[in-house]
Amino acid sequence: MKKEDQKTLIGKINPDVLDFTVGKDPVLDLDLAVWDCLGTAAHVTMLSRMRVKPPVLTTEERNQVVAALSDIIAEAKAGKFTITAADQDVHLAVERRLTERLGDLGRKIHTGRSRNDQVAVDIRLHVKDQLLGLTEEVASLAEALAAFGKRHKMLPMVGRTHLQPAMPNSVGVWSTAYAELLLDDLLMVEAAYVYNDLCPLGSAAGYGVPLPLDRQLTARLLGFARPHHNVMHASNARGKDEAFLLAACSQIMISLSRLAQDLILFSMPEFGYFVLPRDLCTGSSIMPQKYNPDVLELIRAKAALVQGYAATANTLLTGMPGGYNRDLQDTKELYMEGLRVTRASLRIMRLLVESLEVRPDKLRAGFIPGVFATDKALELVAGGMPFREAYQYVRSHLDDLESADPDAAVAAKTHEGATGGLCFCFYRDKIKQVRQWARERRRFTEKAFEKLMRPVAAPAKNR
Amino acid sequence: MKKEDQKTLIGKINPDVLDFTVGKDPVLDLDLAVWDCLGTAAHVTMLSRMRVKPPVLTTEERNQVVAALSDIIAEAKAGKFTITAADQDVHLAVERRLTERLGDLGRKIHTGRSRNDQVAVDIRLHVKDQLLGLTEEVASLAEALAAFGKRHKMLPMVGRTHLQPAMPNSVGVWSTAYAELLLDDLLMVEAAYVYNDLCPLGSAAGYGVPLPLDRQLTARLLGFARPHHNVMHASNARGKDEAFLLAACSQIMISLSRLAQDLILFSMPEFGYFVLPRDLCTGSSIMPQKYNPDVLELIRAKAALVQGYAATANTLLTGMPGGYNRDLQDTKELYMEGLRVTRASLRIMRLLVESLEVRPDKLRAGFIPGVFATDKALELVAGGMPFREAYQYVRSHLDDLESADPDAAVAAKTHEGATGGLCFCFYRDKIKQVRQWARERRRFTEKAFEKLMRPVAAPAKNR
Amino acid sequence: MKKEDQKTLIGKINPDVLDFTVGKDPVLDLDLAVWDCLGTAAHVTMLSRMRVKPPVLTTEERNQVVAALSDIIAEAKAGKFTITAADQDVHLAVERRLTERLGDLGRKIHTGRSRNDQVAVDIRLHVKDQLLGLTEEVASLAEALAAFGKRHKMLPMVGRTHLQPAMPNSVGVWSTAYAELLLDDLLMVEAAYVYNDLCPLGSAAGYGVPLPLDRQLTARLLGFARPHHNVMHASNARGKDEAFLLAACSQIMISLSRLAQDLILFSMPEFGYFVLPRDLCTGSSIMPQKYNPDVLELIRAKAALVQGYAATANTLLTGMPGGYNRDLQDTKELYMEGLRVTRASLRIMRLLVESLEVRPDKLRAGFIPGVFATDKALELVAGGMPFREAYQYVRSHLDDLESADPDAAVAAKTHEGATGGLCFCFYRDKIKQVRQWARERRRFTEKAFEKLMRPVAAPAKNR
Amino acid sequence: MKKEDQKTLIGKINPDVLDFTVGKDPVLDLDLAVWDCLGTAAHVTMLSRMRVKPPVLTTEERNQVVAALSDIIAEAKAGKFTITAADQDVHLAVERRLTERLGDLGRKIHTGRSRNDQVAVDIRLHVKDQLLGLTEEVASLAEALAAFGKRHKMLPMVGRTHLQPAMPNSVGVWSTAYAELLLDDLLMVEAAYVYNDLCPLGSAAGYGVPLPLDRQLTARLLGFARPHHNVMHASNARGKDEAFLLAACSQIMISLSRLAQDLILFSMPEFGYFVLPRDLCTGSSIMPQKYNPDVLELIRAKAALVQGYAATANTLLTGMPGGYNRDLQDTKELYMEGLRVTRASLRIMRLLVESLEVRPDKLRAGFIPGVFATDKALELVAGGMPFREAYQYVRSHLDDLESADPDAAVAAKTHEGATGGLCFCFYRDKIKQVRQWARERRRFTEKAFEKLMRPVAAPAKNR
Repeated sequence: MKKEDQKTLIGKINPDVLDFTVGKDPVLDLDLAVWDCLGTAAHVTMLSRMRVKPPVLTTEERNQVVAALSDIIAEAKAGKFTITAADQDVHLAVERRLTERLGDLGRKIHTGRSRNDQVAVDIRLHVKDQLLGLTEEVASLAEALAAFGKRHKMLPMVGRTHLQPAMPNSVGVWSTAYAELLLDDLLMVEAAYVYNDLCPLGSAAGYGVPLPLDRQLTARLLGFARPHHNVMHASNARGKDEAFLLAACSQIMISLSRLAQDLILFSMPEFGYFVLPRDLCTGSSIMPQKYNPDVLELIRAKAALVQGYAATANTLLTGMPGGYNRDLQDTKELYMEGLRVTRASLRIMRLLVESLEVRPDKLRAGFIPGVFATDKALELVAGGMPFREAYQYVRSHLDDLESADPDAAVAAKTHEGATGGLCFCFYRDKIKQVRQWARERRRFTEKAFEKLMRPVAAPAKNR
Repeated sequence: MKKEDQKTLIGKINPDVLDFTVGKDPVLDLDLAVWDCLGTAAHVTMLSRMRVKPPVLTTEERNQVVAALSDIIAEAKAGKFTITAADQDVHLAVERRLTERLGDLGRKIHTGRSRNDQVAVDIRLHVKDQLLGLTEEVASLAEALAAFGKRHKMLPMVGRTHLQPAMPNSVGVWSTAYAELLLDDLLMVEAAYVYNDLCPLGSAAGYGVPLPLDRQLTARLLGFARPHHNVMHASNARGKDEAFLLAACSQIMISLSRLAQDLILFSMPEFGYFVLPRDLCTGSSIMPQKYNPDVLELIRAKAALVQGYAATANTLLTGMPGGYNRDLQDTKELYMEGLRVTRASLRIMRLLVESLEVRPDKLRAGFIPGVFATDKALELVAGGMPFREAYQYVRSHLDDLESADPDAAVAAKTHEGATGGLCFCFYRDKIKQVRQWARERRRFTEKAFEKLMRPVAAPAKNR
Repeated sequence: MKKEDQKTLIGKINPDVLDFTVGKDPVLDLDLAVWDCLGTAAHVTMLSRMRVKPPVLTTEERNQVVAALSDIIAEAKAGKFTITAADQDVHLAVERRLTERLGDLGRKIHTGRSRNDQVAVDIRLHVKDQLLGLTEEVASLAEALAAFGKRHKMLPMVGRTHLQPAMPNSVGVWSTAYAELLLDDLLMVEAAYVYNDLCPLGSAAGYGVPLPLDRQLTARLLGFARPHHNVMHASNARGKDEAFLLAACSQIMISLSRLAQDLILFSMPEFGYFVLPRDLCTGSSIMPQKYNPDVLELIRAKAALVQGYAATANTLLTGMPGGYNRDLQDTKELYMEGLRVTRASLRIMRLLVESLEVRPDKLRAGFIPGVFATDKALELVAGGMPFREAYQYVRSHLDDLESADPDAAVAAKTHEGATGGLCFCFYRDKIKQVRQWARERRRFTEKAFEKLMRPVAAPAKNR
Repeated sequence: MKKEDQKTLIGKINPDVLDFTVGKDPVLDLDLAVWDCLGTAAHVTMLSRMRVKPPVLTTEERNQVVAALSDIIAEAKAGKFTITAADQDVHLAVERRLTERLGDLGRKIHTGRSRNDQVAVDIRLHVKDQLLGLTEEVASLAEALAAFGKRHKMLPMVGRTHLQPAMPNSVGVWSTAYAELLLDDLLMVEAAYVYNDLCPLGSAAGYGVPLPLDRQLTARLLGFARPHHNVMHASNARGKDEAFLLAACSQIMISLSRLAQDLILFSMPEFGYFVLPRDLCTGSSIMPQKYNPDVLELIRAKAALVQGYAATANTLLTGMPGGYNRDLQDTKELYMEGLRVTRASLRIMRLLVESLEVRPDKLRAGFIPGVFATDKALELVAGGMPFREAYQYVRSHLDDLESADPDAAVAAKTHEGATGGLCFCFYRDKIKQVRQWARERRRFTEKAFEKLMRPVAAPAKNR
């Protein structure tokens, strides 16, 4: 190792070690820049109100820092913010900028704070924001599926179990089944949101500081429900934030992979129920005739990827001792990729569903006689035969089954949620409610940020 | 293959295939017997109220079936219910018993139902019940941790990051940090409960039936929030029930594994902070002096097991085509073992926490001078020096650091959630609230079951 | 905790702790009984030859112990060996039996040994034996697939990519592709075998003992290639034994799951290429017409299970400190279940392959014109057109493609490994070689065991 | 979707779909550029020797293409090769370049080939090369560990089980235990190498082509052991290549994580056995005194990452239908990251081991009396007492144990592989053998490549 040690804001370090430990942070942390500035704004606002003599920061100093942070936010939003390897991460990059611009004032802002609670708050703000976007995308895909289902409400489609033809079903039920599956997955998205809606600021390196920090204030300024109570818990919960989020993304991706699998199968020429427009398919380098459903196959694969991220985050946390451990750095890419992949899959799936064509003739042609066997048995039941006897009777007279009318069979099942008993208002209401949940949260947080970044008049008592 | 095919209630089958497909069901399904009877009771009650001519079941017949089911429940609770391989599973075992006792009446009960919706309802009832027990056990462990923390509220303990001594901390903060970690995990338990609180009955094989089933009624009779709307969704959601549950168990086990890791480390003689009573330790076959924390190591291992169950359930669901697929049979052992292991770990950890001894001298002896470095820097900040400057000053004068008084340092951090700012009422209230949530749900469900199993007077119009 | 502590051979213990720590060992360990006796026989033989004064064991005493062990082996093989919870595990159960029968002599056998090296040797002997059985079952399934492929060597079957019809293929190529996939998986089985072919005996608790143990001798007596060199490594490698094995089982199960998926798809009536005999299918409780490929679906699910076991073993090992840790107990069920499931899946898949019927008409009917597009482009190439140009030409004249003769197309691809260039001797030789590998290892080990259990004449110098 | 469809070499496509399907390929594929050119060189060489009239390529044309490929290889090695989104991947990027330079000749090279067999051969060449580098890095780390162990051969260190002090051990045994653990992991690396040493070329899209391709020739030209026999197997094995590799990387990372865990623990001040030089540690932004073992923590985390990649690859493959499926694209990043992370971890761990300082006083101070209990019991055994009795005696007289001399205890264990019986030549020989294995394979392949890229004299018969 002949290379010289590298200086950083917080010590000298072997350059190979710096490379290894910094990893992809200079790239990944770009997504955190805005949130880091907001977190810092809340922290310095709180410091400026903290009743110590002399004050750590005056109100005027607070305003200077917040103004500088606003500029960095603008820079970041314009894609011009960068992080060097010597910066190590977004936190030291922001601190360096502030110090370059504000001198000693920049050197004060880290009072009563550690990068541990700082990154924890950045991630939570980022995750909350992303989860709302994700929720809206789930709602939009569910809407597209419900609309597709409504368009083909009573169009017969063979219902399958074990992939074998089973009973009469409709495109309407098939399509809205996936809408409902995705909407129910949002339960875990909501749990992840609430988990991330606690503010870790003030826990510093996990053990607080001997300063009268007002943790309720910073939590409120940033639009969190409340702070974590215990400071060590605020630190220990890091990693779980991501794990909750990834568990939620996994469930959504599993749902998407199942929808993708159905579409792959039923767009094979042997079924031909669905047709994907050619420009949404990709070709082969050797076979001129190919139009392949690559998007759907990749969604299936990405379900494996996102589960992998989730499992990795869990493995990484297992048996980790209390207090911050550097292992946690490696959950960052996991959660960011997990979100990116899940959101991209939701958007592209919506494009596909909106473009999907159906072939009624192919769908009806799938109704082989066996599909009507249960209806036949229940007909015998209606005539007074015990079900198990009717079942045995039909089973031993399978060859006598005749192809009945698929449309009539679809219309005949009228109880709630069956082919003839679908209520599209159920989906409309559910989607509306989901969107409202996201919108309210978004408004609440944005209002808090807007207020936070405003200059503050110096309080009379401080003058 | 010279063995003869085996007869079952629903067909003949090759005996090797029967072995392979039945798997561990005859054992695992025993846990479902009570729930299967309750689900059947709700189904037949609904059938008896269904307005068809002739009625599938009269009120009197319904009462006969329910009485027989009560007897089977009693048998199951007494551990006397058994399932044979020819039965295949609990559903056919119950149907066989009813048919043996009630003749044709037994052959009627499966009208408008499939084993698919039947097992789905069994599992959901079982899972809901288990999740309440689990919640109560989390509350009890959190209570034990909070009580332990309260007993040693201000007892100094070195706070660590990267496992290295970092800052002053207390046993109080350390212990309640784990209480809070576990209590926050309950967010996912609650999401799993709500996910499982929808009734799949009436979806039959996933496509409903041409009978006017009243799905709202069966849902209400069994104490569910409501039925799934879409019948195919009710079927597709199978597997997700277990996946949600296992995601929740994983998070709890991760929390336990981290507590276990801390206890393993800090009960090594080099620390000696904590001592486990000898009769909670196990020995070695070769080393006479050994008292090992096997329980804690096994909890660490069981965190890996439960995550494995969760990951397996997710893998199994990925890319599964719509409608029931037999793959789902194999999620049963996963969820049952996941619950069993998680609940056993919670109970044994509580026993350990309640028996744990602390060594104040060893805890105080851990305060090497470096632990006070941050406090020293903040002292300089209080005198007006910018933090980053104070930090650099202390960093270059580390050898001058003197050991300060751990107790004073612990008392000096008074902001919320720090060593001197812990509020035990936070835990008391939270635990109370959690217990109430579980109690209310339990009461509601039990009341529904009690009502369900009562004989019903034949309605005037039916007479 | 009012229950009394329970006495064991090596100390008193709280009964709840005993339950939790013993877990399923009394059941799982039954599979290790024979191997434990063999390991003990090797250990005492070595002790009796160890040059210390007085000898730990005389040759005569050695013979007494080995005779008693032979009886226990017979008992175990007859399924009559049992382990109580107070025994904790197979090791103390065998030691207790020997002590009951031989008195003080029984108390001597554990000299220079710990349960750590004892269970490690048991598992390795068990795993080696199982891997040979597994190898033979892979060979038999590959043989069945090759025979099936040979029977339908030139029978046309549409080759697919992205599940879409792609190019002409044959049942012969399809079937032997899976044979070759499985045979190649054996590379990892062999690696697992070699990994397990090192003897940990003499490492005791992982740190050896101050006695002149002859570790080469015990390794040789048990038919191992050699001992681990480093004693701590012998202990640290525990868990890896299982992880290697489970990695191998995972690959086999992945291969089986893909074969199962193809069979599930191509036995749907829309394809109808393959038909499973009815008595290998299972029915539905509601749908009289159903004959479902449950076995295949369960194999797909079991691929997820086995991967879960493998991932769990890896998670459990990650970050485990050096030296024995109790976490390792929980790899036992993982590896045993992994083996059981993989071997059962191999056997049942063979039964299915041997019973599989094909429908030549259905197979030929799948050849839609697009399948011949590439052949058409290559025809143009043969006439001198650059390939990419020929490709573009065919792509823009897709509608002109005519259905060619599938049989001719299959015959036309004559290069190695294509439809017309399959060499069945490749499979015959490969399978022969695999079987020989397994047979040689089995013979070698059995011979060692047979010799080990014989009485030994006291050496002249000892008399 | 108002954006216009984008033209590619093989068709028009919706730009959002192109983005989604291309993913990170334009970046990831850069690592494949050299291998893609080599694969193409082998393919065109074979085409030029293929006996068809007119020849697909003349020898002269072959030389032109190979010369152009040489230039692209040089460009790629200089880091100047780029791939555009419209190229989609490295294969079409190379084909485009060749066509731009060679016109119609470029359009001929894809004759008898698909991107499926092309990427498969690229990956296998890449993986083989990487595995040799990995093997050498394992050897170097093992060498560093063995050297460290030799330097401190007889330095006493407490051996632990359950992390509790157990028996006398030495730094020599501790360190070489990890060397041996890593060296044994190479068994799976070798299996992965052999798995990847088969050539898929000529399988085209998985079903061969109606051309007399010489698959033995291309395999030989590229230095492979042989081609896969079955063409569909060559395609189905894709994904397994990566899975085998990742299984091997997982085992290495697990071993590294355990070494890291030991170093983290034993460099805590409470042990102080090992000291990491300050410039290999990183600091804290709040705590001036901190020098943290971040590298080791990150290695622990990266063990979770690599396992995650392995598990994801397996999940992705499970239940995948036969023939190429686009899901396979997503194994590329997994295997590349898995290799990158594993190799970086091996190199940085070696730097750490080479810089590690030991503190003999701290190591000896860890020998509390209990550590000698087993030696004491074996002393009694030497006097004729049965072991279990000696064990019980020492267990009930633990307080009488006196601290014995650690150095004497270390010297007293002289059997193979124990503290006094370590043979460093074992490691020297093993490392030498491993390096030789890698060197031989590297030489063989490089020689093949060198020959492949040479111009070929037109054969007499072709003139």
